[in-house]
Amino acid sequence: MANILILGAGMMGSALAYPIADAGHHVRLCGTPLDEEIIAQAKKDGTHPKLGLKLPGGVTPFAIGELSAAAQDIDAIALGVSSAGIDWASTILPSIARPGLPLFMITKGLVLDDGALRTLPDVVKARLPNGGDGIWPAAIAGPCIAGELARRVPTCVVLAGHETATLEAIQALIETPYYRLFPTTDVVGAEVSAALKNAYAMGIAFAVGKNEKAGGTAGSIAMHNLESAIMAQAIVEMSRIADRLGGSRNTVTSLAGVGDLDVTTNGGRTGRFGKFLGMGLSRDEAIQKMEGATLECLEILAVMRQAVTVGSVPKTTFADLPLLEHLIHVALDGAPADPPIDKFFGRGA
Amino acid sequence: MANILILGAGMMGSALAYPIADAGHHVRLCGTPLDEEIIAQAKKDGTHPKLGLKLPGGVTPFAIGELSAAAQDIDAIALGVSSAGIDWASTILPSIARPGLPLFMITKGLVLDDGALRTLPDVVKARLPNGGDGIWPAAIAGPCIAGELARRVPTCVVLAGHETATLEAIQALIETPYYRLFPTTDVVGAEVSAALKNAYAMGIAFAVGKNEKAGGTAGSIAMHNLESAIMAQAIVEMSRIADRLGGSRNTVTSLAGVGDLDVTTNGGRTGRFGKFLGMGLSRDEAIQKMEGATLECLEILAVMRQAVTVGSVPKTTFADLPLLEHLIHVALDGAPADPPIDKFFGRGA
Repeated sequence: MANILILGAGMMGSALAYPIADAGHHVRLCGTPLDEEIIAQAKKDGTHPKLGLKLPGGVTPFAIGELSAAAQDIDAIALGVSSAGIDWASTILPSIARPGLPLFMITKGLVLDDGALRTLPDVVKARLPNGGDGIWPAAIAGPCIAGELARRVPTCVVLAGHETATLEAIQALIETPYYRLFPTTDVVGAEVSAALKNAYAMGIAFAVGKNEKAGGTAGSIAMHNLESAIMAQAIVEMSRIADRLGGSRNTVTSLAGVGDLDVTTNGGRTGRFGKFLGMGLSRDEAIQKMEGATLECLEILAVMRQAVTVGSVPKTTFADLPLLEHLIHVALDGAPADPPIDKFFGRGA
Repeated sequence: MANILILGAGMMGSALAYPIADAGHHVRLCGTPLDEEIIAQAKKDGTHPKLGLKLPGGVTPFAIGELSAAAQDIDAIALGVSSAGIDWASTILPSIARPGLPLFMITKGLVLDDGALRTLPDVVKARLPNGGDGIWPAAIAGPCIAGELARRVPTCVVLAGHETATLEAIQALIETPYYRLFPTTDVVGAEVSAALKNAYAMGIAFAVGKNEKAGGTAGSIAMHNLESAIMAQAIVEMSRIADRLGGSRNTVTSLAGVGDLDVTTNGGRTGRFGKFLGMGLSRDEAIQKMEGATLECLEILAVMRQAVTVGSVPKTTFADLPLLEHLIHVALDGAPADPPIDKFFGRGA
């Protein structure tokens, strides 16, 4: 029985408390400054207002002002903030992380740093004292809707990190029968999948929007033919990007890519946003309809536009990525959603 | 402007008439003995009763008794029967097929023949006069719901065959802006995908049924986490089977596999059948609920059980295919639907 600190009490960070508590550990769920209301509610009646569920026994909520108590005698740190919270977290981690203490994160993504695409685990490590010497941050990626994990829906995720021993330690600590971790050292493949699936899931949803605009309804006759072609081209392009960045295609064509793209298509806001664009709403109208929801797809599309343009993806131009190019034009430039199927699957490139 | 004979006037054979007519050709839509009512209706008012749509201009319906007129001066043959109709078609084709006349088929699948898994294009060829000398049957595979193609939904399909010149000729003949063909000589990869996607789509739908049984509704919180893990494992296993049979993994991880698995999951009867099994209905109860619908998933699972057991898939046992093994137990033996996620992604094998 270990003490595990989860830093960040949003949906996904808090969802992680369920399998970890079920694995028999004490969970210290410590909110960020943005989570004060969540923590107050959890302290009051043991529920998590955003998940709409009771937290499991074995979970103790802490406000950020109580961090030092929360971090006392911990055996592992789970970083539960979104990518927008990474800068904040980087100011906190140095005081609690230390060599030998497993650190894993639900945060994932790619950032462009001085012309190079870097993965978030590497970014987090670099910001630790002594460049993170002796600490190997691992990232949980792959298909996981927080509200489902918290309801104990069987879930398989990828655990990506550079050091196998750390991965094994984390897996041994937090795995439960309904929450299975699949370790990989292909951090690039896992992070490319995790980051880009948001952009491509938006594109898959274009077909849903186009169907709705054409007066079709959801059902077995819709625009699934188009949807599935976009999904397949997405996997082709994600595999290509992972490969050119030194990752493995096999990571993309398995749980981290295929699985996560599928779940993101079915799971909510990215799909809704893509649907609005497919219906012909302008980019700004679609953003307005989303009422302030975080749109990771826009962030990663902006990163990829710059990365491909400046050559950060070796030997790759937009001619190799016709769907990504289209997604950028639609989501960032306001072009109409009209996927270039004639350029898919290696043609016209 | 060419004369193209479509043999078989079911949903998919007839759907093919739309892009071919739109490409500017004369289509002779000739029904099988099972299609007499469809053809009678089409002759009467130009509609296709199963598609519920008017046939496009340029399509002339023929009953099977009028085959010789339908086959006069044709420039290509499209075989539009299901796999159950292949034996019948093999008695007809010798009288109309000839070297140099492009022959393509929507029929797809794998059969076990004397201990070897063979693809349907190869089976069809072997049954032609002189072993099909000079004829290279091509197969249209990949994601295509007939009712969507007939409504001109943008659709990408794979055109698989052994001879590139034939593939190019067929593509040049029938491609339209909304119906894109992607030629490949990886017949094994395309047919493995086309056949097995039915089995695996059934498995993905287990999650839908389990959610419904647990009182959940469709929506963004359901059992998408489980669903996506099964989908990813399906692609892993299909890739493995294609590879071991001499096909290419890349065919599976693109349009033929990822795309077709996705569309089949969304497109109707296989998914409904899997849902019933996931809800806990017995195999026989689930079959009864399907009211006589053809269940390709059961056929291919029976073929694969035997093929793996007798070693027709080189170097492969069920330990390499834990999901397929589970699907066989559920659909053929009546075991409960409970996907072995602990054995997924290379673990426990």
